[in-house]
Parts: sequence; structure tokens; C-alpha cells
Amino acid sequence: MKTPETIQEALLTFLPARDGLTDTVIESMTYSLTAGGKRVRPILTLAFAELCGGTEEAAMPFACALEMIHTYSLIHDDLPCMDDDELRRGKPTNHIVFGEAAAVLGGDALLTLAFETALSETAMKLNGAETCVRVGRLLAECAGARGMVGGQIIDLESENRRISLERLETMDRKKTGALIRAACLLGCLSAGADDVRMQAAQEYADCIGLAFQIVDDVLDVLSDEATLGKPIGSDKDNQKSTYVSLLGIEECRKRTAALTERAIKSLSVFDHGTEFLTDFAKKLRDRNK
Amino acid sequence: MKTPETIQEALLTFLPARDGLTDTVIESMTYSLTAGGKRVRPILTLAFAELCGGTEEAAMPFACALEMIHTYSLIHDDLPCMDDDELRRGKPTNHIVFGEAAAVLGGDALLTLAFETALSETAMKLNGAETCVRVGRLLAECAGARGMVGGQIIDLESENRRISLERLETMDRKKTGALIRAACLLGCLSAGADDVRMQAAQEYADCIGLAFQIVDDVLDVLSDEATLGKPIGSDKDNQKSTYVSLLGIEECRKRTAALTERAIKSLSVFDHGTEFLTDFAKKLRDRNK
Repeated sequence: MKTPETIQEALLTFLPARDGLTDTVIESMTYSLTAGGKRVRPILTLAFAELCGGTEEAAMPFACALEMIHTYSLIHDDLPCMDDDELRRGKPTNHIVFGEAAAVLGGDALLTLAFETALSETAMKLNGAETCVRVGRLLAECAGARGMVGGQIIDLESENRRISLERLETMDRKKTGALIRAACLLGCLSAGADDVRMQAAQEYADCIGLAFQIVDDVLDVLSDEATLGKPIGSDKDNQKSTYVSLLGIEECRKRTAALTERAIKSLSVFDHGTEFLTDFAKKLRDRNK
Repeated sequence: MKTPETIQEALLTFLPARDGLTDTVIESMTYSLTAGGKRVRPILTLAFAELCGGTEEAAMPFACALEMIHTYSLIHDDLPCMDDDELRRGKPTNHIVFGEAAAVLGGDALLTLAFETALSETAMKLNGAETCVRVGRLLAECAGARGMVGGQIIDLESENRRISLERLETMDRKKTGALIRAACLLGCLSAGADDVRMQAAQEYADCIGLAFQIVDDVLDVLSDEATLGKPIGSDKDNQKSTYVSLLGIEECRKRTAALTERAIKSLSVFDHGTEFLTDFAKKLRDRNK
């Protein structure tokens, strides 16, 4: 079952047990890993595994590894020296609860645990060693300096200044797009999919990844409008460039619709079983939070 | 050649190229990775690979992965929210040069790159997929919450208070011992060593790992004495427990000698070729910095 609940259950099985000595770091990891979220990435992994004829069981360690990497990136992103956020999903951020040192270490340990999980005995038995190596390598490529971390540094260096649409898209392709791409491809790898299916998964991932970010920007503006009474478009005065400030809200909606269509069309290489991922792309487009 | 120079050369080949967008994080990684150091861990990996009949070439990606993990841990350890150090090996620490955000991200990217390196195409061709999976898993176990990061949290929570010798040893077994153990075992894995050899390598690692820490403590006291004129033993007034404060300097020297003897003796399962590792253990014991 591809639900946030079953994914959380699986995540917990990979966490180390408390030992009385290192409990702070284990509690820091557990706190953020169980702090909710849509579990978009693991759901994509499981869905593509199924679509390509694999099993959820075999893909689950990879799905969990992705969610661990996503979670660590949020912990470090929220740190005072980064975005300095005190709340995430309505709860105090990790460093507010455990202190900065345990937040840094909890993030480090989650990133490390992601690889331990993707390369676990369970993962190897169900997927074979060669697939585990390819999965671990792809995870690292997408999460590292050429992927997510690269996007985070572009984001930090784009603060308080206008940037071009091209730079914004490059940033997002790395910062959030890379892990979404990994999510879809990991499912394919687990199922032993061929190149045609891998390419379709990548196209789907790239389209929904970008659409996801554009919707995020639109929702931000709408919620500002609702809560602060700011007129739409007034964020043009804001220093940070967004899809809304660069394209306007109508063009954002058009692009989101077109990207979602392209994502759905990319699934046409699969004979059947594409309903879940078709609906998933539409739900991401139509979400209101 | 097992020299710091050849290892640094190999390390640089695994770093991502600058792309004009994410250069800050790549420079942050490069700065710390090339900031010197004894390269104890990669040298151990290469030495055990050779001793077990493998090649330096095959073991090099694993050796480099270990050094990347060691380096990331130093960057994060030096952060203001951790040890708050401004100098390391006589040079400004990473966050002093690049800022805290780039130091956090540079560390994250190095940890990620370690797995990309251990699971690289090169590593797989030379070692086979199964070995790469075992290596990646061991790296993660030794670097994560049950290993190095676990030791770091124990260290943080032991600050400004006396701790028992048992707790100090547990902390060091995790904080520095785990990576030294990984270093020796990774060399064995690369060479396809059997369990007897793996156990000997682990014994060697555990002995020199602990001896290394005790020597560190002794050298700290001697350098305080030399530069600050503090009499030996006055650190008993210091809040932090060390081997010197708990055992006295003479007992420290005895233990270091005994541990080094045990390390050398553990190599007796190998028929020949143990000179390098015998000398290495002695040099660590006799070093003066």
C-alpha cells in the first residue's frame, strides 16, 4: 500500500534502537522522520516499481532511503545559518527542539542511514547487488553537489536578489527536481526496467518536479493574499524571484497544466497500470497546500 | 604508493567540476579535502588491501570515500554550534572561509560524494558489485548514529563534566575508532579477504584506534605544558575527562605501548608483508604531533 502510513511504518524499522548513550541523535532523527509530510518521493518510487512489474517490498528500502535524504535536507535547510526557520509543517523545527548541534548530527546520521538502508541485506536480497550499487550511486548523484546540495547553494546565493527564469529553473531542477527524478528512477531500477521505461520515468519526474515548484509559488502568493491581504503581484516588490514574480499567476497556471499533461503523456509507453501516477500528477497540480 | 600526495591526487579526481553556479560548495569541499592531514585512514585501507593480496588501484575509491567522510566530520565538528573552532591544522576552518551555510553544505556534499565514490563505475569494475555493496554498508554503519555520529553526540554531551573511563572509551571507539575500523576492513573487503584476516584487521584497528586517542591526549597535555607552562596533571582541574586526567601520563604510556604491541601481534596471521603496518603502528605511537 502506497500510503504515508505504511511508508512511515517502514521508515521506523530502519532507525537504530536507542542505547542510552546516543539517544539524542536517534530522537532527533526520529522526530523529523515522523513529522508528517506527503511522502511524495517514496510514493513515486513504489508506484514506478509497481508500474514496471516490480514489487513494493523490493522497492521499499529505496523509497525509505529517499525519504531519509529528503528529511535530512529539511533539517539542515531550517538551521539558523541556512533559512533559519522555527516551524515546519506547524511543528517546531528540529534545532528548536534538540538544539543546533543535534540537528546537524541528526541530519548527518539520516543521510548516512539512507545509504545503509539502500545497501541493506534486505535491499540486496530483494534487488541484487548490482541494482543496489546503481541505486546508491544515483541517490548520491542526485543528493550531492551536482544535485540537491548544488540547488541549495544556488538558492542561498540567490537570496535577496532578482534572478532569471533560467537560473530559477536550474536551481529547482537541482534542489527539488533531482530527488524527484531519483524517486521515479529508483522504482524503475528496483523492477529492472529497460531504458525506454527509465526515460519515460525521467520525463514524468522532470515535468511533475517543475510543476510542483510552480504550484508551490502560486500557493505561497495566494496564502499571502488570504492572510496578509497583499494583492496578487505585489511580490514583484519582494527581492526574491519566484515563478509568479517572473511569469505572472496566469502563465504559471498555464505552465503547470502543460507540464502535468506532458507528465501524463510520458506514461504512454506503459501498456496499463498508469492510473495511479496519472491521478498523482493531477493531484499535485490541483493541491491547495 | 601509499603517500599523502598520491591519495590527495586520487581524491581530486572524484570531485565534481566547477560549473559557475555551484562553485561555492565545490570550493568548500576542495578546501577541506586538500587542507593536509596524515591520511591515516586511506593509508590503512591501501595497506590492508595489499597485505591481503589485493591492489591499491581497486582499493583507492574506498580509501578516498573514507577520507571524504573523515573530512566532512571535521567540517561539521568545527562549526560554531559544535566545537566552534577557527583553526584546524594551522588554517582557518571551513566556515571561517566560506561561511556557515557553505560549510554545512560542503560537509553534506562530501558525505554524499563518499558513497558516490565507493559505488562508482570504477569501484564496481575493479571490485565487483557485491563488494561495493558490503563496503558502502560498512561505511554507513561506521559513519552513522551507531558509529562516528553517535560518538560525536556522546562527546557533545560529555562537555564540561567528568565522565568514566568506560564512557570515554566507548565514545572514542565510536567517534574515531569506527572509521579506523572501517579503513582496515575496507582494504580487506577490496582484496576478498577471509574472516580470519578480517578479524585480525579489526583487532589491529581497534588497538591502534584507541592508542591513537591516548597519544592525542598525552600530546595535548605536553603541548599545553610547553606553550602555557602548565604543570602535567593540572588538567585534572579541567572539566573535561581525558585519558591523562583519568589514568595519569605514565599509565597512558604503558597502555599505548601495550595496545601497539597487541596491534602488531594481530598481524601474525599474515605470512609476510606486515612490515609497513608494523611500522605504521609504531609511528602512530611515537609521533610528536
